Amino acid sequence: MKIAILGGTGKIGRGLALRWAPKHEILVGSRSAEKARKAVEEYKRELLNQGISDRVSAHDNADAAKLSEVVVIAIPYEHAVETLREARNAFKNQVVISTVVPLKKVDGYFAYTPPKEGSAAVEIRNVLPRSVRVTSAFHTVSSEKLADLGAELDNDVVICGDDAQAKKVVSELVREIKNLRPLDGGPLELSGMIEAFTPLLVNIGIYNRIKYPSIRFV
Amino acid sequence: MKIAILGGTGKIGRGLALRWAPKHEILVGSRSAEKARKAVEEYKRELLNQGISDRVSAHDNADAAKLSEVVVIAIPYEHAVETLREARNAFKNQVVISTVVPLKKVDGYFAYTPPKEGSAAVEIRNVLPRSVRVTSAFHTVSSEKLADLGAELDNDVVICGDDAQAKKVVSELVREIKNLRPLDGGPLELSGMIEAFTPLLVNIGIYNRIKYPSIRFV
Repeated sequence: MKIAILGGTGKIGRGLALRWAPKHEILVGSRSAEKARKAVEEYKRELLNQGISDRVSAHDNADAAKLSEVVVIAIPYEHAVETLREARNAFKNQVVISTVVPLKKVDGYFAYTPPKEGSAAVEIRNVLPRSVRVTSAFHTVSSEKLADLGAELDNDVVICGDDAQAKKVVSELVREIKNLRPLDGGPLELSGMIEAFTPLLVNIGIYNRIKYPSIRFV
Repeated sequence: MKIAILGGTGKIGRGLALRWAPKHEILVGSRSAEKARKAVEEYKRELLNQGISDRVSAHDNADAAKLSEVVVIAIPYEHAVETLREARNAFKNQVVISTVVPLKKVDGYFAYTPPKEGSAAVEIRNVLPRSVRVTSAFHTVSSEKLADLGAELDNDVVICGDDAQAKKVVSELVREIKNLRPLDGGPLELSGMIEAFTPLLVNIGIYNRIKYPSIRFV
């Protein structure tokens, strides 16, 4: 499967690209061609160590999206909606996975700051064509651990979305990453409840000195 | 220690009363004297089976609060603030533990519906005298499992509050329940992030057919 990772030069991008490349073709998108090229070079070196070649390529965000069946949005909230609005024409029928979380630091802790739509995922859905099936996932995974191939993941990923088939695709992609368990979080409208996990996890980490905390439902 | 449980005739009340009675004196409060008396009779029978007698008593909510050092608010959100406003004069210096969660069912799932104060805990703090140290906890524990003494708990309880000493008291009370781990959730202002766990957990249970899900930070 062809998977685009928009904003794919950061920690989530690195983690997903390297972990999915053994089974999929990864198109790393970035606003900066130079940044994408550099990140892809690094990912290629890492993958060559595992004997995997020619599975990652660099693109601008719109091209990466246009050429792919699954599009991960790993762009910081501040730029996500604007970037997607500009790249709108590149979207048709894809499964989109929003990992985007609007948050801010207040008095030493982090707060979830959803837009008026209730969540980043719903806001993103509203700027993309209706044929696109938007889901929301990976908010409960530490991006630090995801990017570190030696780190043990072993937690749950809650997926929100309105299209059952799209959620199945995302569940399968989650399951392909060792020790991650996909859970159904309900319709996309509930994405805010899951996006809020990211600042919460950061706070729990700060107040309890847990490094890169994540979550399991028991 | 004397611990009042207001609204102590429900599942959370039963669970906490029976689990704390071996070490503490439990004052069960209710709006209905008859309901409190009946619940306490049942708790006493259960405790006698464990060889524990005279550790639980029935009161109206105000008396239970007045006589105790720790006051658990296990009243449904709809009645909590009004009940506490009426019982305001019974409060002075206590450590209060709010387990209260404002939620509602929408289209088959549950949504967190915080008051304008941002959380039930902050709203409750605002109606009680300033000497009272309000904390917020137990939102991540299944009330079904808590009430069932045979059930394995084994999850995390996140505690919010502004008074370090009060949080220490609550942490200790959490730790006294086998397999519950207390975690610091930061100031009371963040209680909304933790209260939102309750409807989220119910949703995760519904969508994934997990019976009484709870949460662990890993």
